[in-house]
Amino acid sequence: MEEEQDPQLPSFDFKPFMVHKVNAVNQALDSAVPLRDPVKIHEAMRYSLLAGGKRVRPILCLAACDLVGGKESMVMPAACALEMIHTMSLVHDDLPCMDNDDLRRGKPTNHKIYGEDIAVLAGDALLAFSFEHIAVSTVGVTPDRIVRAIGELAKSIGAEGLAAGQVVDISSEGLTNVGLDHLEFIHVHKTAPLLEAAAILGAILGGGRDEDVEKLRKFARNIGLLFQVVDDILDVTKSSKELGKTAGKDLVADKVTYPKLMGINKSKEFVEKLKSDALELLQGFDPEKSAPLIALANYIAYRQN
Amino acid sequence: MEEEQDPQLPSFDFKPFMVHKVNAVNQALDSAVPLRDPVKIHEAMRYSLLAGGKRVRPILCLAACDLVGGKESMVMPAACALEMIHTMSLVHDDLPCMDNDDLRRGKPTNHKIYGEDIAVLAGDALLAFSFEHIAVSTVGVTPDRIVRAIGELAKSIGAEGLAAGQVVDISSEGLTNVGLDHLEFIHVHKTAPLLEAAAILGAILGGGRDEDVEKLRKFARNIGLLFQVVDDILDVTKSSKELGKTAGKDLVADKVTYPKLMGINKSKEFVEKLKSDALELLQGFDPEKSAPLIALANYIAYRQN
Repeated sequence: MEEEQDPQLPSFDFKPFMVHKVNAVNQALDSAVPLRDPVKIHEAMRYSLLAGGKRVRPILCLAACDLVGGKESMVMPAACALEMIHTMSLVHDDLPCMDNDDLRRGKPTNHKIYGEDIAVLAGDALLAFSFEHIAVSTVGVTPDRIVRAIGELAKSIGAEGLAAGQVVDISSEGLTNVGLDHLEFIHVHKTAPLLEAAAILGAILGGGRDEDVEKLRKFARNIGLLFQVVDDILDVTKSSKELGKTAGKDLVADKVTYPKLMGINKSKEFVEKLKSDALELLQGFDPEKSAPLIALANYIAYRQN
Repeated sequence: MEEEQDPQLPSFDFKPFMVHKVNAVNQALDSAVPLRDPVKIHEAMRYSLLAGGKRVRPILCLAACDLVGGKESMVMPAACALEMIHTMSLVHDDLPCMDNDDLRRGKPTNHKIYGEDIAVLAGDALLAFSFEHIAVSTVGVTPDRIVRAIGELAKSIGAEGLAAGQVVDISSEGLTNVGLDHLEFIHVHKTAPLLEAAAILGAILGGGRDEDVEKLRKFARNIGLLFQVVDDILDVTKSSKELGKTAGKDLVADKVTYPKLMGINKSKEFVEKLKSDALELLQGFDPEKSAPLIALANYIAYRQN
């Protein structure tokens, strides 16, 4: 019966849901990383962590946990850990030896304020603390599920995940014969891993069955690629002011992107295809509990920054 | 009865023990990080990981596990993880924006070979993989002990551990009014955290009692400070060739060191004091099983590079 129902419930009001969740996540992040000694590194960590990101990863994690019947307290430390790791990757990405970015989330980048050395260390500390936070602060979950969640999260960051995408991205700059497969590899590895980790950590820590974990994994892979294609489109269609970060970077860096390979219109069609594929994977779940995930996929597809 | 026995067993032959353990650790590291796609980042990770370090942290971990009656297989992934993290901290430390070092373990530093961007990412990937490796590859240990070990390890790296020491170290360069307390803070945080993690992870994963974990924690804190004081002494008394890394760096960077604060002779006396304090903590354990730890403390105190 559930499968026959339209998953696009018109009754779900996304904006207040997001505002509520963003506030909860921001509060949890603020308490997780207090300003203590040594002050300088904690200040640098907090500067980028609390700079007002969209909190897509933590909210995806919370929604996945709810979908499988888990409680928010089981998964909030993991949700915060995901944002810490995301922040680390931005801080390191913005370094002069990487993308050399001066502006992020509408503010000067971490190394612009604290210096490159502190930015490197603040990123390392955020990465390490994300694992500490899950290991120490997760409550109401059996240790075997915590170990499994840590294994999945760590895998999503390393040389088979985030870092792999970044390395291949760097190696591809200025290449002219890059195909769609290659581009998809970069994109799937640069954005999807953490979104995938977010969804499956929610399901694992929330007590989900293995088959639900795998459905959420596929859902997240789809919206991960979706997220990146939209990012590529925004980079060429919006100004720096609208984005809150430097626009047109991909063109300047001579990076291969979807708009460059298939044009803006085909890229937008691809966004629609990825979105509907993702939503199909949510059929069979309780429609009330899948509504936030559907809304999140729509939000990622149609966001303006 | 054990407590009355001389812990300095003359029968223990340290050199073959170390050779055997170093080989076992190197083999485990080689299999843990195979050369696979994307090749470049795995190559960079392996370049620094397999560059022939002393493997003090993994061996301390293995010896602590043996001390509490655990088997090597329980703790080898954690031992490897410690070396991955140590390597990450060296790769990031050597970056131009940090210590700007060209030479490490007698070879060009990671960024000299692979570029700064890859060096940052290879470090991040090693850090992430260390947690994946413990979570996924540890066998014969209950999940609650694995979670506890991950929490302790993560804490030792972050803003209260390694990174704290580095930040305070950076902030202290060129300061003239730095006292012994301040220096000890830097040293305790820069070296001791990973040695402490090594010892207690061995005890936790090897099935040790809480009181043994705490004894090993204190032992490791002592030899951690010992390690750093010896490093300071070697930096001013040895050549770059003898050390396999750039000598005299501390003087050039105008860093505060033990020899600078208390002179070479008093620094050497301090080494003796720290060593005998450490050995006292091992009384009460099976002398045969504590012999490697005693020998390790002596090795750290009297090493020449």
